[in-house]
Amino acid sequence: MNNRRTERGAFFPPFWKTDSHYVVVEFSKKISLAQPEEIEIAVEGRYNVKLNGKLQFGMPQRMTLPAGEHSLNIKVYNTTTPPALFVKGKTIHTDNSWNVTFEDKEWIDESGKASDTSATTYMAAGSWNFNDIHTPPSQFKLEVEPMEAVAVESLPGGELIDFGRETFGFIRLQGLSGEGVITIYYGESKEEALDTEYGETLDKLAVSGNQITDLSLNKSYPLDGDFTLESSKAYRYIYITKDAGVKQDKVSMLYEYLPEAYRGSFRSSDEELNRIWEIGAYTMHLTTREFFIDGIKRDRWVWSGDAIQSYLMNYYLFFDSESVKRTIWLLRGKDPVTSHSNTIMDYTFYWFLSIYDYYLYSGDIDFVKQIYPRMQTMMEYVLGRTNVNGMVEGLTGDWVFVDWADGYLDKKGELSFEQVLFCKSLETMALCAQLAEEDQDQVTYQKLAADLRAKLLPAFWNETKQALVHNRIGGEQSESVTRYANMFAVFFNYLTSEQQQQIRESVLLNDDILKITTPYMRFYELEALCVMGEQTAVMKEIKDYWGGMLHEGATSFWEKYNPDESGREHLAMYGRPYGKSLCHAWGASPIYLLGKYYLGVRPVKEGYKEFSVTPVLGGLEWMEGKVPTPGGDIKVYMDQHTIKVKATEGTGYVNFTSGSNPTVNRGEVEHLSGTNYRVWLEGGEELVIGYES
Amino acid sequence: MNNRRTERGAFFPPFWKTDSHYVVVEFSKKISLAQPEEIEIAVEGRYNVKLNGKLQFGMPQRMTLPAGEHSLNIKVYNTTTPPALFVKGKTIHTDNSWNVTFEDKEWIDESGKASDTSATTYMAAGSWNFNDIHTPPSQFKLEVEPMEAVAVESLPGGELIDFGRETFGFIRLQGLSGEGVITIYYGESKEEALDTEYGETLDKLAVSGNQITDLSLNKSYPLDGDFTLESSKAYRYIYITKDAGVKQDKVSMLYEYLPEAYRGSFRSSDEELNRIWEIGAYTMHLTTREFFIDGIKRDRWVWSGDAIQSYLMNYYLFFDSESVKRTIWLLRGKDPVTSHSNTIMDYTFYWFLSIYDYYLYSGDIDFVKQIYPRMQTMMEYVLGRTNVNGMVEGLTGDWVFVDWADGYLDKKGELSFEQVLFCKSLETMALCAQLAEEDQDQVTYQKLAADLRAKLLPAFWNETKQALVHNRIGGEQSESVTRYANMFAVFFNYLTSEQQQQIRESVLLNDDILKITTPYMRFYELEALCVMGEQTAVMKEIKDYWGGMLHEGATSFWEKYNPDESGREHLAMYGRPYGKSLCHAWGASPIYLLGKYYLGVRPVKEGYKEFSVTPVLGGLEWMEGKVPTPGGDIKVYMDQHTIKVKATEGTGYVNFTSGSNPTVNRGEVEHLSGTNYRVWLEGGEELVIGYES
Repeated sequence: MNNRRTERGAFFPPFWKTDSHYVVVEFSKKISLAQPEEIEIAVEGRYNVKLNGKLQFGMPQRMTLPAGEHSLNIKVYNTTTPPALFVKGKTIHTDNSWNVTFEDKEWIDESGKASDTSATTYMAAGSWNFNDIHTPPSQFKLEVEPMEAVAVESLPGGELIDFGRETFGFIRLQGLSGEGVITIYYGESKEEALDTEYGETLDKLAVSGNQITDLSLNKSYPLDGDFTLESSKAYRYIYITKDAGVKQDKVSMLYEYLPEAYRGSFRSSDEELNRIWEIGAYTMHLTTREFFIDGIKRDRWVWSGDAIQSYLMNYYLFFDSESVKRTIWLLRGKDPVTSHSNTIMDYTFYWFLSIYDYYLYSGDIDFVKQIYPRMQTMMEYVLGRTNVNGMVEGLTGDWVFVDWADGYLDKKGELSFEQVLFCKSLETMALCAQLAEEDQDQVTYQKLAADLRAKLLPAFWNETKQALVHNRIGGEQSESVTRYANMFAVFFNYLTSEQQQQIRESVLLNDDILKITTPYMRFYELEALCVMGEQTAVMKEIKDYWGGMLHEGATSFWEKYNPDESGREHLAMYGRPYGKSLCHAWGASPIYLLGKYYLGVRPVKEGYKEFSVTPVLGGLEWMEGKVPTPGGDIKVYMDQHTIKVKATEGTGYVNFTSGSNPTVNRGEVEHLSGTNYRVWLEGGEELVIGYES
Repeated sequence: MNNRRTERGAFFPPFWKTDSHYVVVEFSKKISLAQPEEIEIAVEGRYNVKLNGKLQFGMPQRMTLPAGEHSLNIKVYNTTTPPALFVKGKTIHTDNSWNVTFEDKEWIDESGKASDTSATTYMAAGSWNFNDIHTPPSQFKLEVEPMEAVAVESLPGGELIDFGRETFGFIRLQGLSGEGVITIYYGESKEEALDTEYGETLDKLAVSGNQITDLSLNKSYPLDGDFTLESSKAYRYIYITKDAGVKQDKVSMLYEYLPEAYRGSFRSSDEELNRIWEIGAYTMHLTTREFFIDGIKRDRWVWSGDAIQSYLMNYYLFFDSESVKRTIWLLRGKDPVTSHSNTIMDYTFYWFLSIYDYYLYSGDIDFVKQIYPRMQTMMEYVLGRTNVNGMVEGLTGDWVFVDWADGYLDKKGELSFEQVLFCKSLETMALCAQLAEEDQDQVTYQKLAADLRAKLLPAFWNETKQALVHNRIGGEQSESVTRYANMFAVFFNYLTSEQQQQIRESVLLNDDILKITTPYMRFYELEALCVMGEQTAVMKEIKDYWGGMLHEGATSFWEKYNPDESGREHLAMYGRPYGKSLCHAWGASPIYLLGKYYLGVRPVKEGYKEFSVTPVLGGLEWMEGKVPTPGGDIKVYMDQHTIKVKATEGTGYVNFTSGSNPTVNRGEVEHLSGTNYRVWLEGGEELVIGYES
């Protein structure tokens, strides 16, 4: 996936280590059969089959196992694509109950005796929806659907084609013949498509009679009228130029996408907000592919900081756990750790956090147990790079990212932002150690977390500024205050409630503090405000900021948006006129904010065994929506008099405020304090609350 | 290479971790051009080209670089085969002066500024004889040559075909047609080929009209009379059975081999010894393939303990440094280390030793520098598994091998043999740290080595037994004495000369001590005796032991030979009637012993910058031979009156004993003591010494 980026026709792989699969894998399973059973076996790779320790001839494609207890071991070798196994019988089938290992440590001594293999490390096999012998994993492809342009404009140099909105797929040239070169300039904006010099992506093809050559791949194909490009790209517009000798009728496309059910939903009395949710959902869908990627035009890479936000939005939209798991695995790769995640220090920390998030939403403890050893080696890498204070600072090779900012961001010394994330990562390690039943580790990480936690406020809190300062160099606090550490400290609950209130004024609502201009950090900024009960202010921000992009004509949300900029300034980034991604996953955060802080649904215990629903209108007249849970969903409706909640699984509190005594159709209302009430919700029936707003 | 083993038609990969290549590699080179230069570029993989930081369109196959200073960076992605690059211009060409990295850590900030890449780890590119754009590394194949059978015998069930001696290659079935199954049973012995039930390797083919299917690969090929199998095998005999419906005329083969120049030679007055040398050389040639493998029939795997002996023999036969280097790399694989080399503790230690050996013979310091980081992580693994005494003992998952023995060999506790190898490995680390200019490491490893060395004799020397005991359990010496640690302690010079003399009697020449029945450990046993000046006794052993195999009809040397066994007993091993390999690299040790301890040639300084020649007849009337050096050779002739030595490079002493004053044609004789003399040899002229034997 990370090797699909191109820049003006040049291949552009990532600058961090790309790991490949294990090339020899043994799959094994203990089987108990009441009846003899025939199995079929399909394998990607060269393989052998051992039944109860006895090697079978060749590579059997069918076998009959007698009744009784069996050990079935199938060893697969494949350098090109990951070793993959499909076994199917009446009762036997490959799934994640099979074990895998890449070194079975089973040697034979001179007398023919096999070694003790207790040192072998087994993992659960990965499995997904490859339920048919004819759909091997290596042939996996996203779905495609034909799409037509909505407008075609003939210009002096070529044709400008508009597909109506940001999209992704394979351009299809119809009625192609003749002799000469045809060039496709892609644009997320019209300006980009028409700028043949500086547009970010393009394809060049040479047509010659009944052959067509992709000039950036040096690859030729037979041509019989129509041609669909091999590489999919992101665009709304394309501009096509061609030599006089080339003929071509029509351009269409195959839209390429991962099929996803929209299990979450949101509608309200505010049509602009509804449109923001829809464009957010579409942005999420475009960037949820083989993995959760950052943006569809430029990198098409998997970035940990981007991905953790995709996961969180995903829990309120698709609840696609497979995409979460495979993205977390991809980001980690194999040992040894030779750099931070994507080389970025903060991205390493988000990676840790994302695992516990996933557990909390999904309840999938097996995943935590399986990945825990990789968490350990990642944390060993981090701990091996701490300074004498036990804090992290950027060493050579570390990218201290924080955020793209329109202004100077000091990356030197101990950044409070990085320490806050580091501390939360250590706490996460302790939680996951407990889940993995690694008690000694749990104690170790708890202590490390507590030690660092105790240092945070003494090191960074500035009583004069009533805020955490940005960094400390040589033990000296800097004068600079930024939003980052302060807002994370709020929702990590690292501050006293007095300090939280101070930060609200001194930082979060203070226009003198360097503004955030990426949806990426707005995600956390607005989340911090929501945690403090500022839903009405946040609603205004959502409409201003995301509504602002819509006013600029956005059909998907952007990598960065500064309302102070105008025209082509919105397209530029990285010193390039069209460097900015106009469809960026982190642009979709209203999906998360509306689900978690307006519909107000979140898991309290893992996998929504217990949940809480705290609906807040934040200025809306009414809203309604659904939040998916592992096996169902939670429906919420709220207007100024009524709250309705229905959960297909789990139990939990519905929290709300009411000016007078509320009414309920079932259960009992608990009066907590002042205007605060809650109702315990059980069973699948709808709870209807009458309240006074 | 390790994935070519089959067992009765079943694929049989190794039980240790198989690493694969890095799938994204950046090749780079600083280039200075006086004139503009056109280069051609050929790549295995998808790639991009950056000239002075600027990405070029597509995947250019030709480029013209202007005169001046340039940075050329080519990034290649390939999951199937290792990323490979070929660049050729008038002055520019790819070789090991190019750098490679698998993570360049070059990120771009929001203003378009590139990061400092000083944290990037660069290595020298691997390169070999792929000097033509049409010979990509992934297509490398050994050479083949057609060979005919020497005898064909028709038996009731099939045909027995004899190729006259142990060989290796692809069976070729000529004039094949009809319908039915044809089975090829391979045998290193006639007994094995004819035993259709228990022979180790076989191939089954189904012929059906103009198609033939390899039933163990589930793979079909078009058939037009002749068919050559896709997998090469080891055999002298093959037995072919076929269904009545299959017709087939003739069987021949394609002999498969690595082209090697026989740069070393040996001839003497003893024809049997000459035959032993020749069969040894042939055994070496058969097992020197893509890598140095153990034996050609069964594993065809690369084993560290076997390989170190192959390397040493190789220095006296082919001096093929490329095969040494690539075998050392293969044995190590990638980090992290998850087991000992081939899972065997002693094999890890041989791996360390083999690197300094290679340096000493070749003078190739670049190799040591390049592999040093992998030596460090391997040693970290070892040090992480030491006990409270700082010694190694077999933990779960460790195979403590020592040797195949006809008798009980205790593997428990601290084995003196393993500690001796461990100590030598630490000394090797210190030497290599110095070569790699890692001064702090050198000090650390020297200290670790000295600490362990100081513990060896107190822990294992038994004054009553006048020997090192075999092992120590719970701090208590066992009663057992074996040859292993004692003989290594001799040639590692870990004992006083008094102790050495004691060991000679109490262990090495003592028939009550468990006998060695593998050529593997005979290698070291006879080396220890040679170091003590026992060439005459060793000559008798060579003739008895290797001559013994020749008397049994060997056409290549075996994995194991016990003169007390007879008939089919010679074929059995691992509880299988034909489990023994009859062509095993470690069988060829006379190649090494005759070169190093009879012709007496060895490097004193790295790469034979200085050498010593200490010829010893050991009972022969005369002998003559050549020992290769990196850029030439050293010729030695000796009879009972004359010694002749000629070296094409390097300088060194010729050492000899003489009963009276010797004469020389050049240089000056130094009288050392008693009958010991030496002459310093310089230049390429022949030195002729007259002496009295």
